[in-house]
This record gives sequence, C-alpha cells and structure tokens, in this order.
Amino acid sequence: YELSLGLVGSEMCIRDREISSAAAANAVMLAAGYFNPLTGYMNKDDALRVSREMLTMDNLFWPVPIVNLTTDANALDYTHGEEIALKDPNIEGNPVIAIQRVDNVEKLSDEDINIIVTNVFGTNDDNHPGVKTFKEQGRYIISGSIEVLNYSYFPSDFPDTFATAPQIREMLTKAGWSKTVAFQTRNPMHRAHEELCKMALDRLEADGVLIHMTLGKLKEGDIPGDVRDSAIRKMVEIYFPENTAIISGFGFDMMYAGPREALLHAVFRQNAGCTHLIVGRDHALSLIHISEPTRPRLISYAVFCLK
Amino acid sequence: YELSLGLVGSEMCIRDREISSAAAANAVMLAAGYFNPLTGYMNKDDALRVSREMLTMDNLFWPVPIVNLTTDANALDYTHGEEIALKDPNIEGNPVIAIQRVDNVEKLSDEDINIIVTNVFGTNDDNHPGVKTFKEQGRYIISGSIEVLNYSYFPSDFPDTFATAPQIREMLTKAGWSKTVAFQTRNPMHRAHEELCKMALDRLEADGVLIHMTLGKLKEGDIPGDVRDSAIRKMVEIYFPENTAIISGFGFDMMYAGPREALLHAVFRQNAGCTHLIVGRDHALSLIHISEPTRPRLISYAVFCLK
Repeated sequence: YELSLGLVGSEMCIRDREISSAAAANAVMLAAGYFNPLTGYMNKDDALRVSREMLTMDNLFWPVPIVNLTTDANALDYTHGEEIALKDPNIEGNPVIAIQRVDNVEKLSDEDINIIVTNVFGTNDDNHPGVKTFKEQGRYIISGSIEVLNYSYFPSDFPDTFATAPQIREMLTKAGWSKTVAFQTRNPMHRAHEELCKMALDRLEADGVLIHMTLGKLKEGDIPGDVRDSAIRKMVEIYFPENTAIISGFGFDMMYAGPREALLHAVFRQNAGCTHLIVGRDHALSLIHISEPTRPRLISYAVFCLK
Repeated sequence: YELSLGLVGSEMCIRDREISSAAAANAVMLAAGYFNPLTGYMNKDDALRVSREMLTMDNLFWPVPIVNLTTDANALDYTHGEEIALKDPNIEGNPVIAIQRVDNVEKLSDEDINIIVTNVFGTNDDNHPGVKTFKEQGRYIISGSIEVLNYSYFPSDFPDTFATAPQIREMLTKAGWSKTVAFQTRNPMHRAHEELCKMALDRLEADGVLIHMTLGKLKEGDIPGDVRDSAIRKMVEIYFPENTAIISGFGFDMMYAGPREALLHAVFRQNAGCTHLIVGRDHALSLIHISEPTRPRLISYAVFCLK
C-alpha cells in the first residue's frame, strides 16, 4: 500500500540564506503586526521612492526602506516566485526565521545607496552608525513577501516585555484606555523623561502612557536591555499612579535614522493602538554630528497626535 | 564596504518534502492552537502508546497519533536537529507550510501499523476510509517540533468561517458566554441536530452553542463545504434566538476514527474555550461496518462536559 505521494524525496531542497540582523528585525516587526500593511521586503523602486518621498510605489506613506540586503551577488540567481528560507543570524545554529517568496533581486548602484542614506540618515558618512550598518548589509536587494515563523530571540530573552502590536492593543483595551501616549526608549528613563510622560498625560488628558522599549540591537555605549528593563519597572512602581503606565517592548534594531525613524516609530505605535507619540529632542539620534561631538541644537520634546 | 556576513551563498539549501494532506492538516491544527500543548509530530513510541493507552510518553492524555508519515525511505537520511521545509500538498505550487526540526525518523513495522489502526479505527480493513488514508501516508515517521507559516487554504477558502482556537475564545468572551456547547459537524444540520443543540442549551442552562465545522478533506459522498456553510447559516438565521449560536470552522481532515476522534474533538474544543461537546450517535463514523452497510446500533447522542 505504499503509494507515491508525488513530489517527495530528500534530494530536493529550497535555497536558504543567513540574513542580516536588520532584515531579521524587519521580519519580526512584519510578523508582529507593527509594519502593517507591508507584507514583505521592498524592491529597489520602493526603497528609492520611500527614501526620497516617503511613499511606496503604491502611494503608501512609509518613512524608511524595509529591505533584505545581501553582499552576495549569487542572490541574483534567484528566480521570480522562488521560495527561499531566511536564517536567523541572532540565534545559534541559525534556524529558519521566515520563508520569502522572491519577487526580484536587484543591484543598488553607488548612486542608489547615496540617495537612500543621505535621505534617510542625513549623511553619507560611514562613521554614522546607521549609515555604517546599512552599507555593511550589501547592495543586492531581495524583494518579496515573507511569512514569518517566530519572533527570533525576543520572546525568550524578554518574556515579560516583548509584545506584538495586537497584544498591545489588547492590553490597552483591557486597561480601558482610549487615549494612549507612546514613549519610545532604548535607555533607562531619567527624571525628565518621567516628568515628560506625566506632562503629556496631564495636558492631553490621556488615559495612560505606553513605555515602549527597543529590544533589538543597540549601538555601543547603550545600556544593556535587562538593566534598562529593571530600572524602568522600578521607576513606574515607585513614581507612577496605578493604571497610568504599561511597560512593553518591540523587537527591532535601532536604525539611528533620526526624524525618519521618529516617523517610523509613529507608524508602528499607531498599529499598536496608541493615539500619541512623544518625540524626543534627539529622537533616534536626529542630532548626530559626525565631525564633532553629538550635542543638541534645540532642547525640546514634542508630542504628536497619530491621526 | 561589502563585508562578508559569514554563511551566505545560494549554493546552500534546506531539504524539503511535500507532506500528506493529513500531516498538513495537523500542522494547521497545531498552529491554530487546537492541539495545545503538542508542539509537533509524534515519534513511533508516542504514536504507539497514544494508540494503545491514549497517553504520550510524557503522560499527556491524547486520543490519536499526530504524525508526519511518508512513503519515502530517503527520509531516513535526515539527521537529528536538521530543519526541513514541509510543502503544502493542497495549494498549487506547493508552498512551504512549516519548518520541522527533525527529532528522529523511524520505520513502522507491519505490527506497529496493525497496533495503531486497530486501536484507533477499530479495524485493520483497508476498505475503512480512515485506515486507507492512514496507510497510504506511508510507514516512515518523521518526528519533531514544527513552526507553521500559514493556515493553508482555509482562511482564503473559508474567510468567514475558519477561526483559530484563540479567535474562538475571543468570540466567546465577546458574546459574554461562560458555558458553551460545541457541536461538531461535517454536513448540513437537519431538524434533529437543531433540536439537539437547543435541548443541550436548555438542559445545561448554557449560554450558547458553537457550531464548529470540519473544513478539511471529507470522504466521497459528504456535502461540499460551501453548501454546508450556507445551509447552516440559514438555519441559524431563521431558527435560533439571537446570540445563542456562533458558526465557525477548523481546518482538519476527517479521520473517521469514531470514538477516538470524538475524544480529539473534545480536546480541541476545550482548547477553543468550550465547556461541553455534543457527541453524535455515529460521531466521526464510530459505527462504520466494513462488511455490511453502515447502520446505527444505538440511536443516541450524549453531551459531555469538558472538565
């Protein structure tokens, strides 16, 4: 009774590829609903138009390219519609994190890369941490939709903090909040941050603040995730009135793209059900200066309404 | 600046395999939370103990083997810990539906297969539709946990009906039901089924009935899914009081395993938040007779409490 089932056989395989940490972080954000309505990685035209005009070719507002780049020219060999297995660079053994249906593979020229980085990061200087990370990923851009298997190391490393966008919307519903201010942080919060959140709550007559931490890769010198987490939880415990702060986090590497990243932060907080976002005086290194020490040009925070 | 990222290169690949419709249905049920706390396909020892004692080697109650079988002896070549891509037999082009981390590959002997089918289906007769389907899948059992990419054709073919276990729990919460009777069906409901649901509601003082349809592969002669769906919706619209019936479905092929399948139906309705299950007089073909026409030995239905 051992009939053949057709296309079986261990001699077949699908091609795989270890992707960059940035591409893996994009996959996690896509899977966690933060990057709705995107369904995968952008192609060259999308990446260029997003960089220049903050619009995809379908006229969707999007502030930064969401891409899968590689240094490997062999990627040009993929065929349209082929499924490839994307392997997670951040977990030992590099398990598959997603399956990508390849739409196209294109090569970015020096000019393309210049357009992207100068628009997104405000500079083409390789000393800028965002520019450096972007360029190191390579110039072959593999576009196409992805289906994601897991949230990488985030749920195991941050079991009490990592949450998807729908999970956060559920927390907000359970808390009974209809007006929520998101506060972005990659570091412990100091006294001024605490006051900033409370002022936003007060002036907007908001129900609460979502303290929403970057759980992904940080730059050298940033405070480790577990220290930041404990510090923030202690601050909320001692200094915030009951049911006015929810602490959570998302799995994404910092891009250090300044104002563009602030807009991305706004987009994905909107996907998580927040109504407002506090944008810092130097949000995601808006004020980075390459040739001189980083210093603020303007000391101010703004709260933007996500409508 | 084009640094190497290490293990890149399109010459690498992960092995893939088109799986049986039954194994794909298992993947969908695992992904949709219906088969909690299972995390993948059982090995030979689990399958045999489940068949004989309805317990896994970890002493978890489970009524039927949840397995990935193949006719292909090349599967024996897989190594422990290897990731393989499982391809969906029910979608054109056979896209990847899941990644399995292979634990082991074993061969079932004639005696193993006899133990499984006689315990699970009550017979080893190849004319039994469940026995036939089981045996046609082959005797090489690929065990190991899986991570699932999508719910196969169910969400696109049944957009208004397919739901995961957490989605059903949410529907029940929204409806404000704390006592819910599940009614299993693979066919349109007739007048006696309607009455049965209402009697169960009445006698249990339950809040409502979940009419929960099998959306997977049926046996020849069963009513097509769309016809069944429309018929049931019309019946509920005309004959059920408001907020006493929720219509939904799950993506699973009928096994025709009789009482064992009734227990599986109980387990996964419990995972979906139901408190009771109506078990029919011939639930999942409990009364199938191979050598004579199927006929009831006992006309009765029972309602079981899922506690």
